[in-house]
Amino acid sequence: MNPVRIGVLGCGRIGRMHAELIAKQVPNAEAAAVYDVVPDTAAALAEELGTRHAAAPEEILKAEDVDAVAICSPTPTHIDLLMAAAEAGKDAFVEKPLALNLADVDRGIAAAEAAGIAVQVGFNRRFDPSHRYVRDRVDAGELGDVHLVRISSRDPEPPPLMYLDESGGIFCDMTIHDFDMIRFITGSEVTEVYATGAVLIDEAIGEVGDLDTAVIVCTHENGAISTIDNSRQAVYGYDQRVEAFGSAGMAASENPLTATAVTRTADGAHAPTLPYFFLERYIPSYLAEWGAFVEMMEGAPSPVTLADGRAPLVIGLAAWKSVREHRPVRIDEIG
Amino acid sequence: MNPVRIGVLGCGRIGRMHAELIAKQVPNAEAAAVYDVVPDTAAALAEELGTRHAAAPEEILKAEDVDAVAICSPTPTHIDLLMAAAEAGKDAFVEKPLALNLADVDRGIAAAEAAGIAVQVGFNRRFDPSHRYVRDRVDAGELGDVHLVRISSRDPEPPPLMYLDESGGIFCDMTIHDFDMIRFITGSEVTEVYATGAVLIDEAIGEVGDLDTAVIVCTHENGAISTIDNSRQAVYGYDQRVEAFGSAGMAASENPLTATAVTRTADGAHAPTLPYFFLERYIPSYLAEWGAFVEMMEGAPSPVTLADGRAPLVIGLAAWKSVREHRPVRIDEIG
Amino acid sequence: MNPVRIGVLGCGRIGRMHAELIAKQVPNAEAAAVYDVVPDTAAALAEELGTRHAAAPEEILKAEDVDAVAICSPTPTHIDLLMAAAEAGKDAFVEKPLALNLADVDRGIAAAEAAGIAVQVGFNRRFDPSHRYVRDRVDAGELGDVHLVRISSRDPEPPPLMYLDESGGIFCDMTIHDFDMIRFITGSEVTEVYATGAVLIDEAIGEVGDLDTAVIVCTHENGAISTIDNSRQAVYGYDQRVEAFGSAGMAASENPLTATAVTRTADGAHAPTLPYFFLERYIPSYLAEWGAFVEMMEGAPSPVTLADGRAPLVIGLAAWKSVREHRPVRIDEIG
Amino acid sequence: MNPVRIGVLGCGRIGRMHAELIAKQVPNAEAAAVYDVVPDTAAALAEELGTRHAAAPEEILKAEDVDAVAICSPTPTHIDLLMAAAEAGKDAFVEKPLALNLADVDRGIAAAEAAGIAVQVGFNRRFDPSHRYVRDRVDAGELGDVHLVRISSRDPEPPPLMYLDESGGIFCDMTIHDFDMIRFITGSEVTEVYATGAVLIDEAIGEVGDLDTAVIVCTHENGAISTIDNSRQAVYGYDQRVEAFGSAGMAASENPLTATAVTRTADGAHAPTLPYFFLERYIPSYLAEWGAFVEMMEGAPSPVTLADGRAPLVIGLAAWKSVREHRPVRIDEIG
Repeated sequence: MNPVRIGVLGCGRIGRMHAELIAKQVPNAEAAAVYDVVPDTAAALAEELGTRHAAAPEEILKAEDVDAVAICSPTPTHIDLLMAAAEAGKDAFVEKPLALNLADVDRGIAAAEAAGIAVQVGFNRRFDPSHRYVRDRVDAGELGDVHLVRISSRDPEPPPLMYLDESGGIFCDMTIHDFDMIRFITGSEVTEVYATGAVLIDEAIGEVGDLDTAVIVCTHENGAISTIDNSRQAVYGYDQRVEAFGSAGMAASENPLTATAVTRTADGAHAPTLPYFFLERYIPSYLAEWGAFVEMMEGAPSPVTLADGRAPLVIGLAAWKSVREHRPVRIDEIG
Repeated sequence: MNPVRIGVLGCGRIGRMHAELIAKQVPNAEAAAVYDVVPDTAAALAEELGTRHAAAPEEILKAEDVDAVAICSPTPTHIDLLMAAAEAGKDAFVEKPLALNLADVDRGIAAAEAAGIAVQVGFNRRFDPSHRYVRDRVDAGELGDVHLVRISSRDPEPPPLMYLDESGGIFCDMTIHDFDMIRFITGSEVTEVYATGAVLIDEAIGEVGDLDTAVIVCTHENGAISTIDNSRQAVYGYDQRVEAFGSAGMAASENPLTATAVTRTADGAHAPTLPYFFLERYIPSYLAEWGAFVEMMEGAPSPVTLADGRAPLVIGLAAWKSVREHRPVRIDEIG
Repeated sequence: MNPVRIGVLGCGRIGRMHAELIAKQVPNAEAAAVYDVVPDTAAALAEELGTRHAAAPEEILKAEDVDAVAICSPTPTHIDLLMAAAEAGKDAFVEKPLALNLADVDRGIAAAEAAGIAVQVGFNRRFDPSHRYVRDRVDAGELGDVHLVRISSRDPEPPPLMYLDESGGIFCDMTIHDFDMIRFITGSEVTEVYATGAVLIDEAIGEVGDLDTAVIVCTHENGAISTIDNSRQAVYGYDQRVEAFGSAGMAASENPLTATAVTRTADGAHAPTLPYFFLERYIPSYLAEWGAFVEMMEGAPSPVTLADGRAPLVIGLAAWKSVREHRPVRIDEIG
Repeated sequence: MNPVRIGVLGCGRIGRMHAELIAKQVPNAEAAAVYDVVPDTAAALAEELGTRHAAAPEEILKAEDVDAVAICSPTPTHIDLLMAAAEAGKDAFVEKPLALNLADVDRGIAAAEAAGIAVQVGFNRRFDPSHRYVRDRVDAGELGDVHLVRISSRDPEPPPLMYLDESGGIFCDMTIHDFDMIRFITGSEVTEVYATGAVLIDEAIGEVGDLDTAVIVCTHENGAISTIDNSRQAVYGYDQRVEAFGSAGMAASENPLTATAVTRTADGAHAPTLPYFFLERYIPSYLAEWGAFVEMMEGAPSPVTLADGRAPLVIGLAAWKSVREHRPVRIDEIG
């Protein structure tokens, strides 16, 4: 069949990465056009990838030679672009988080459903081979009923403060991936959240009202309990581990290393570092994510639906409420 | 110097193990006498070890050829025996937990302090080479300031229901080891506890008011946050892992396997099981524990003081209160 | 600077892979043209990559918009194409083995040297991060003097018999990579070879005079001893491990797994498979190989010289002589 | 049943270890008496273990309260003591190597067979859980037909030169364990040996005619090929790995570490050392060895027969001949 022609909206770090993957490595896909709020950024990327750049999102949304859009712009613009895509009848990939408030999310969902467009939300970690291995064990019944999930998810360094300020804070920006993961692994909705945290790395993070260290405990409908720990600064690299424990066994993903090798001397063993950050660790997951998008365009159901995009935001908002009120918060208190 | 002559009080599973280790494997120690509430049990063990058995604890406490006692009897008898040892001027090893209520513990501590006896509490995991490796990294400053501790501590199968009923429940019986460990690893007291749990393995456990699955989050004085997950039934064996994360790195203990080997076939890799339970996993830690006891008898400070025995009980009681009241509980609410 | 424009000669499995990497993923390189003895193969690949195809190698060798050629055609054509590149003044990448006899190799080397073209031989494993980690430990002196090297190098399944027949046999086709590796790791020339082998997988392999299982012991100038074991059929995947042992320690590369994850059940631990073959394992090494080629084109010395291409062939020929005469063979008996 | 009463002949490092294990840790066994050529050594050990010491081996061999003897004296005395045990009708455990020449070994075997005593030879590594795991996989058919075995067997430091001088050299003293292992793993006799080696660690080792670094390739009756590498000085500890590769898969033992833990910092991962030497690594194997001896005394067949003791010596002698004559040597050239 013909390649899926994708227009990329937003050419920042993540948008640029998506555009490059689509243009060069995703089978049966091509980067049909790119747009960025900074025209030169889009123009330079377009030239590099041998595609065209658009002066406005509408130009891409209306183009006949564009089958779908990848919404990779800043979070506050996601929903408006999604609604514009719905209006234009273009299928869409949307980066996480969908938005930082539920009203916006629900507007977007309503529009997408009314228009009948296919939408995939950008929770790439579901496509990481190691995390997926854990989920596959659960799905295959090899672990029996899941009782406990534990995730350590730690970034190598905090983002710029300016970014933090608009990010929705640690729970809606960073932990949101882990909230998605516990739903993905257990296949069960979260019913209650207890969150606690601290500012241990950089006081400036506290001054903008955010946390840099956090622990979250979630209770699921099926009785399972998930724990997540986050840090904005793991000096040893990007630490991403997911574990499921059930009545018949456990499965856990481990960090890949930058090389699979070891040295032994009189001082003990030494092994290489972890990947530095998501670009070093998760490229295979992004590729698989786009492979799934192409399948969705060919008729398969969305692998990460708008409902999957909404649920972790609700958990994130509940986590913030839990921290503020210093108590466990029921999901149905949020909406 | 002369061997330390130890009288063992209580010859159940753990008392028997201690007596055997003292008699056969602990350098510079000997099993001077054994006592059990069931005389035949003590007699059989005495014969097996080539030592004598006593008809009553007092017989051992008053014996001139006994330097110290190992209190390995059921929990409700620990404090009375500790007080009797104090009265007799015998140094003591006491199994955990010291008691299930603080009034008893405090009586025991007062008596021991008044008598000036040396006492070591039986938190053996502090002596496990792998957990100790983690603590040593913290002590050496290699991890910087500790921000997060996470422990998975899972038994292979629940104890008999009858035992559970008098055990103090999961937090005072099982998690108490982990509460000790987070104090040991961080070197910082716990100030607040949030605990949650479920009955997912055996309804009968719930019927006696206990939990079989639990997650506990503790906040420390120094700002660190510890998370513990427990299960009474890990079908793959005794799962005991401790991890410390700090500003300069992380350190983690992993389970040893019953053999260090691997098979690879077309289906992937297969490796051996975990040790079944504490007798299979922790014998080296018990031996080191007794080595430390001998050092204490030779004048070194207690490696696990009565204060170290009291603190985890307070955390355990706070954890129960947290579950009952479904909120985080400050340690100073307990005592 | 301007991208290096590379013409690819030969579009079989390995040539196609190189062309795709050059066209899509190698920074500062582009696939200027492709040629294959089967015109349709070249045409299809050219279309896919958005480049042109040539009707004859000469067309590429003479093209002004081609800076260098990648010689990926069948082994018997390598030297003639290298000589043609030399005559045309084009720098060259040549796949291994250079040829199956030394006279041809020496003709090629003489021509390349006379023309002063830059040449890199395709020993990609030198660029694998894990094997390179081992070499870097040696280079940094962390292992002291190297005493022993051991390599296990096992393919997942034998090549087609027709291919085997013209391959130079296991030592010149497969082990040649390992002969290169022991030179790379030790930095020392081989002086003597003892080789033994068997036909344990497929009798048809024996019928064409080849072996499917082999062990080779090489002595180096500096006294180190290397051992290599090969199998044409590791049913568990592509097994590629290199270990250096020295007076101050050891370093070893381990196989990466297809996912870094583990399952534990009552039966023990289960982990994912190895990568299936070189396309699954070694893409990062091929990319790094091309990165090094671009650097060579920018003036850096060749990372894998023609002398590096010749030496392993000599060792391979000595290995065959060793098997035939059932004795250790000195390298200087070959040439 | 009654404990097996064992008299220990020879109280050097290995004899002392055996005596202690028998006295304290081997179920259903006791150390009935000890003897050493240095009477004070025997007396001190006897007192420590609460047993008696004998003035001469005969005293033990004739004692009615001794069921079997453990021959742990220097190698040159093994056969005479075995013959004396045979004459006395005592079953025997004999340390490796049986002797350094085949005539002696054959005298011993003839005497033992004539007397009908049960004999177990001290190849303890067969009882190591990790190496046994590999053998069990072969036995269970999980690896199919074995094609390749590879062993790395490296000591932490050379023995005293005086010891070396009478040891039979590296092949009969150290590699003999590995020769036993390849027979144990494959279940197939060795038919040919090629050995090579060097003096890279200490010239004094070369001056007594020995090697400190060696590689040995053995061909088996069933077509399998085994490779062994040895070093007398692995500065990182006692390195003991065995791997079997077959038509259906592979299995490998890995070194246990002194703690199962890891540290990660910005510099990469750090893990603990290997066990220092055999006393740190192989105690569990010695215990299992004695468990098997007790079973033999209860009627089970010998787990390591005199034939199993003879075969590796033959391979060792062939290895020396191979080094001297610089060629592969058939086992039937030795005897």
